Amino acid sequence: MQRQAARWRGQGARVGLVPTMGGLHAGHLSLVRRARKLAGAGGKVVVSIYVNPTQFGPGEDFARYPRDLAGDARRCRQAGVDVVFAPEDREMYARGAAGASTWVVEETLSRGMEGASRPGHFRGVATVVAKLFNLVLPDVAVFGAKDYQQAAMVKRMTRDLNFPVKVAVAPTCREPDGLAMSSRNKYLEGDLRRQAVVLWQCIRQARAAVRQSARPVAAAQLKDRLKGLIGQAPAARLDYVEFFDPATLAPVSEAARGTQMALAVFVGKTRLIDNARL
Amino acid sequence: MQRQAARWRGQGARVGLVPTMGGLHAGHLSLVRRARKLAGAGGKVVVSIYVNPTQFGPGEDFARYPRDLAGDARRCRQAGVDVVFAPEDREMYARGAAGASTWVVEETLSRGMEGASRPGHFRGVATVVAKLFNLVLPDVAVFGAKDYQQAAMVKRMTRDLNFPVKVAVAPTCREPDGLAMSSRNKYLEGDLRRQAVVLWQCIRQARAAVRQSARPVAAAQLKDRLKGLIGQAPAARLDYVEFFDPATLAPVSEAARGTQMALAVFVGKTRLIDNARL
Repeated sequence: MQRQAARWRGQGARVGLVPTMGGLHAGHLSLVRRARKLAGAGGKVVVSIYVNPTQFGPGEDFARYPRDLAGDARRCRQAGVDVVFAPEDREMYARGAAGASTWVVEETLSRGMEGASRPGHFRGVATVVAKLFNLVLPDVAVFGAKDYQQAAMVKRMTRDLNFPVKVAVAPTCREPDGLAMSSRNKYLEGDLRRQAVVLWQCIRQARAAVRQSARPVAAAQLKDRLKGLIGQAPAARLDYVEFFDPATLAPVSEAARGTQMALAVFVGKTRLIDNARL
Repeated sequence: MQRQAARWRGQGARVGLVPTMGGLHAGHLSLVRRARKLAGAGGKVVVSIYVNPTQFGPGEDFARYPRDLAGDARRCRQAGVDVVFAPEDREMYARGAAGASTWVVEETLSRGMEGASRPGHFRGVATVVAKLFNLVLPDVAVFGAKDYQQAAMVKRMTRDLNFPVKVAVAPTCREPDGLAMSSRNKYLEGDLRRQAVVLWQCIRQARAAVRQSARPVAAAQLKDRLKGLIGQAPAARLDYVEFFDPATLAPVSEAARGTQMALAVFVGKTRLIDNARL
């Protein structure tokens, strides 16, 4: 991969990277289109497919995470991807994931929300993204807005470490009922799929509350209302809902237009996340 | 710097980087010659000069570290260096060193010795080296063997994060009496300069002990002898002396030919380090 990337660079071709964990859906393919556009004429698009063990905590879904390399490769081919980079664990972590010795850690934006609920998660993400940047040598990398905190953290990490990479963030793709597309939606069987729409309902309700109010709305009051809404879905359990500054990710006590919200909800055993600008 | 580096890459020129904190001496210039050789015909050599605040602890010598950019630039010119990269703090740490949010940490090789005596030191080193790699985009980077643990840690970090950089280590240069060349030698006034030779005497004594013995020598016994030797220099105070495996840096209880030793000694207020293969 690195040699191929160096050759492309030597030819003056811009390289766009879409880092994924596979289980590709229409959301991923929208990132591919964005990468193609940003790489420009004569540019190359690489999709990396790697279920990175170091970003999963104990008891999380690493083992059962959807893996379908053949199907993913076919979808990439149809989307005009130039290279699918799908390394093995032993290529990415020569001493095994448990024996990894060097980490990239971002200590500000990654503290709350996903960072608080999933200790070590962002350390794994920052490290594997740094590795992928060094292996694929992209000019631009495209991340999905569904993982808002991840995208913010990756942008900060990229700038802090001076990676010569532009980080682009493409909008969340949604199912017709509003559910954000996610590889983990495959876990949702039977009625759970229907109940999963509660995340989108929370976003819509928070947006409506803020837009219908002449002045800022107390975040605590909004959270209570959303907890009530989630309580109506029998299989749903709130992990967190947060209202915060979209740039600093610092929680705000009052929500208004322009405030960012994010939430994580277990639906059955499946943990889903979503976010939106109010 | 990054644009210049990208242009060089586009032209197919190999780039050699010598990262320094300035105060350039003959040891640094030997690294430049090595970088020139490794960059090859048509290659470019960059010397970075940056006294990196994040690798100094509180109470260390950051403020008084020798700074002589004009003299260093002259020495680089005479040595045929293509670019001296001497960034300001605000360029390297946009939010200030105290506001830095992303770190590169190596957690195995950097635990003992310098890592134990100087908490946070190697985090600062690993981070600034990663930043320099991304800014200068070198094919090869040359480090000095005098900082043995640093060189080992940088090699590991480079491989772990898949930086497309070859790390070379060039031998320690010594003064006629054996003192390892170091920018910090400038601190040694009057009789302290003479006493500083005790580090080299320790290395010679340990080497002799191991080479004259038919079997391995207990590390504890060797340490005691070296403590005695250091005790004879009135201004010298041992920080640590360690015998270890040169690849893993794991301490050994018995020293033999091929064992690596390293030591840190305060001479007056100046902390000096040295190391050697026995």
